[in-house]
Amino acid sequence: MGDLDPQDWDAFRAQAHALLDASLDKMQTASDGRVWTPIPDDLRARLQSEVPRQPSNPADVLKEIMPYGVGNTHPRFFGWVHGAGAPSGILPEIAAAAMNVNAGGRDHVAPVIERQVIDWCAKLIGFDADASGLIVTGTSMGTIVALKVARDLADESAMKRGVIGGRLVGYCSDQAHSCVKRAFDMLGLGTEALRLVPCNDAFEMDMDALRAMITKDRKRGLEPFCVVGTAGAVNVGAIDDLETLADIARDEDVWFHVDGAFGATAILGELARDRLSGMARADSVAFDFHKWLQVNYEAGCVLFQNEAAHRASFSDRAEYLRGSERGLAGGAFWAVDYGPELSRGFRALKVWSHLMEHGVDKLGRSIDRNIKLAQYLQAAVGAHDQLAPMAPVALNINCFRYVADGVDLDALNEEIVIYLQEAGIAVPSTTRLNGALAIRVNITNHRTQEADLDLLVSEIVKAGDRLRCDFTV
Amino acid sequence: MGDLDPQDWDAFRAQAHALLDASLDKMQTASDGRVWTPIPDDLRARLQSEVPRQPSNPADVLKEIMPYGVGNTHPRFFGWVHGAGAPSGILPEIAAAAMNVNAGGRDHVAPVIERQVIDWCAKLIGFDADASGLIVTGTSMGTIVALKVARDLADESAMKRGVIGGRLVGYCSDQAHSCVKRAFDMLGLGTEALRLVPCNDAFEMDMDALRAMITKDRKRGLEPFCVVGTAGAVNVGAIDDLETLADIARDEDVWFHVDGAFGATAILGELARDRLSGMARADSVAFDFHKWLQVNYEAGCVLFQNEAAHRASFSDRAEYLRGSERGLAGGAFWAVDYGPELSRGFRALKVWSHLMEHGVDKLGRSIDRNIKLAQYLQAAVGAHDQLAPMAPVALNINCFRYVADGVDLDALNEEIVIYLQEAGIAVPSTTRLNGALAIRVNITNHRTQEADLDLLVSEIVKAGDRLRCDFTV
Repeated sequence: MGDLDPQDWDAFRAQAHALLDASLDKMQTASDGRVWTPIPDDLRARLQSEVPRQPSNPADVLKEIMPYGVGNTHPRFFGWVHGAGAPSGILPEIAAAAMNVNAGGRDHVAPVIERQVIDWCAKLIGFDADASGLIVTGTSMGTIVALKVARDLADESAMKRGVIGGRLVGYCSDQAHSCVKRAFDMLGLGTEALRLVPCNDAFEMDMDALRAMITKDRKRGLEPFCVVGTAGAVNVGAIDDLETLADIARDEDVWFHVDGAFGATAILGELARDRLSGMARADSVAFDFHKWLQVNYEAGCVLFQNEAAHRASFSDRAEYLRGSERGLAGGAFWAVDYGPELSRGFRALKVWSHLMEHGVDKLGRSIDRNIKLAQYLQAAVGAHDQLAPMAPVALNINCFRYVADGVDLDALNEEIVIYLQEAGIAVPSTTRLNGALAIRVNITNHRTQEADLDLLVSEIVKAGDRLRCDFTV
Repeated sequence: MGDLDPQDWDAFRAQAHALLDASLDKMQTASDGRVWTPIPDDLRARLQSEVPRQPSNPADVLKEIMPYGVGNTHPRFFGWVHGAGAPSGILPEIAAAAMNVNAGGRDHVAPVIERQVIDWCAKLIGFDADASGLIVTGTSMGTIVALKVARDLADESAMKRGVIGGRLVGYCSDQAHSCVKRAFDMLGLGTEALRLVPCNDAFEMDMDALRAMITKDRKRGLEPFCVVGTAGAVNVGAIDDLETLADIARDEDVWFHVDGAFGATAILGELARDRLSGMARADSVAFDFHKWLQVNYEAGCVLFQNEAAHRASFSDRAEYLRGSERGLAGGAFWAVDYGPELSRGFRALKVWSHLMEHGVDKLGRSIDRNIKLAQYLQAAVGAHDQLAPMAPVALNINCFRYVADGVDLDALNEEIVIYLQEAGIAVPSTTRLNGALAIRVNITNHRTQEADLDLLVSEIVKAGDRLRCDFTV
């Protein structure tokens, strides 16, 4: 028995089963009660303590904190782009905790399952069978990994001699996620080397503008090396014209990356599949499992058409990580050759288990149902005099706001959102579109029903009617 | 009920409890049987399948794969630097799966607990109360985050205008972990900008050589910006002279980072604490919870003395991530302001729970017991004519090998290690020291006992005696 093993296994076993029951209770009642509940002051105070010198039993606190999460498991959580998770996700977490593997490499079951998940994803996106990939924490990390490969292919000396800032330039729409800019910063390219291409009225990248910007940069002696298409822009859900982007990338001989954080997974359904076909022509695609696929936080994926380029950018093992033909240091797929992390948990297991449990057809139908719910909400907004749409509904996101004359609409709508959150009724978030604050309702939630949206609309209008007098200008 | 919720909750509940029991059985028998077991061919074949279109039940496979992990839960696992995990780690994984929070920011319980863990760690390392930090996947990511902050402080224009490769240069010992080199690559600095300082006979950085290299680089017009000290080198466990490194960093006005992947946590014990005191003077420290602290994979930490510099390097939120004074978009600590990831699981919970459950004093005693076991093994190696030590034992790692005349010792010792792994007896790994292959025995395992080391030594000698004739030169 080890120093940290339970002294009384029966008691430990009983405690684990009790916590499991409390956790299952929490998941079984996901659709009930308040959406978000602020942490009670006394709990917050008790969570702040001195360094624990002596042992104590945290199990009661683990139960006590459960109601005070983000609220994203509730059907009326519409904030940002959060997945709701699925109860069955608890099974692989239990198995993975018992195994406690390091999935960085070597010959054991974790790399086999990770490779299997990558192969499935590559096939679903439309990549060839010899595609490469990696399970990552999420699209932010996937984007960094993808653009590093693009950087190192465009500039052979970057890895050894460093980047010459400002020479390599890339392009994304002004609606692209901030993780693209962050990747340019992280990789030493500089955020100014990322050109923000303006959008059309549908918040999709303007392809003529992109072509003109590339031409202009080339004339200035700069080296365009990548274009980043967005499949599901975070503000409004817009999908760039990926087929045209693929054409431009081919014509200009630059890397084509797709940020499909949530949108890419809509390829499993019918309603958005056609607009996502261009992903198959990308050099790399990054997306999350924990958003629209409802895998528990956190898990994402980055895929590459060119395994050799992917591997070349990350494989440089030290002596103590040398592989061998046989023994535990064997194994064909070492994740350390494909990304920045060496010690890695068995993140792939929950993705594998989720895809097996539900099958991709059901997951696609669930995504399609969310798209239809967004259209349902769009109709409800359109039917209401006090509500004005702020953007077209491209996928699963509605941006609109309560309107009235003689009122500071930005401040009023911000207050409406805070009121709904604090009252526990619903959690939309906000964004700014063309300078104006919008209530933003994102539906990536397999629990949301029409009635939840009816309630949301009526509560927004009621709150607006009541609060508007406080915001008269 | 959501599309992905169980249709029969009673059946799902029974399945979850059955899997929990199987997982507890696996953990309760961690010290029994083989260390590493290769995946049976038929299981490997069944794990390779077409994309799952239709639902199926993965619970049986989750049970079936459990024996085929890395083996690091077993007391005779000595490979690389793996933690063994602790059974109590399953509790926070269950609770976290039920909550399914995104810990990227906002006002809920996860950021409160993450901040608490960071505060405890900062205090334990000896940082001031206003220190900053982030829970990360591991030291590889922590090192990237730390050196990005150092980069951006040294070169104000790096974030916007990119790196000028080769100008900023840094230093670590030639025994430092490859993640430092990887960070230089990732951040656009170039791996050649990382100077490898030679070591003394104890595999610690040669401080005179460091000073001379910094002086030489300055004379060449380059800009030294950081020194990286190693607290527990991966080959032999050496700890650099951190106090002198802190002096040099102060004198040279460069950032002082400590890679303490496993070694840093020995500060909780008595035996290595004095040699780790210099960490308190570092600008940043990165270390893992999943190694010597036995938290389940994966979790690491990066700490900063200078919160403002840490924040400046990562805080640039987009409109859709704007915070507010009240509502769910409130909250003081948004992890997205301190690292590259936006969607983040509740990784901090298992660290918090582990530290509460065991208390840091017990964790320190367990680490000290490993150090004593390494000394015990050192004595056993010294007492054996057929075994020769290859490096001093600084902490918890023994490097030695079987010796005999007229034999290819590199090939023989490699074969001994593979034999021990394949036979399921023990899992040491190998490395090369001064060009020669060594059997490397790392003890970061709270289950290892003296008898395990006795068995290891006798099996190595037996294997060497039997196999040596195959390797005659």
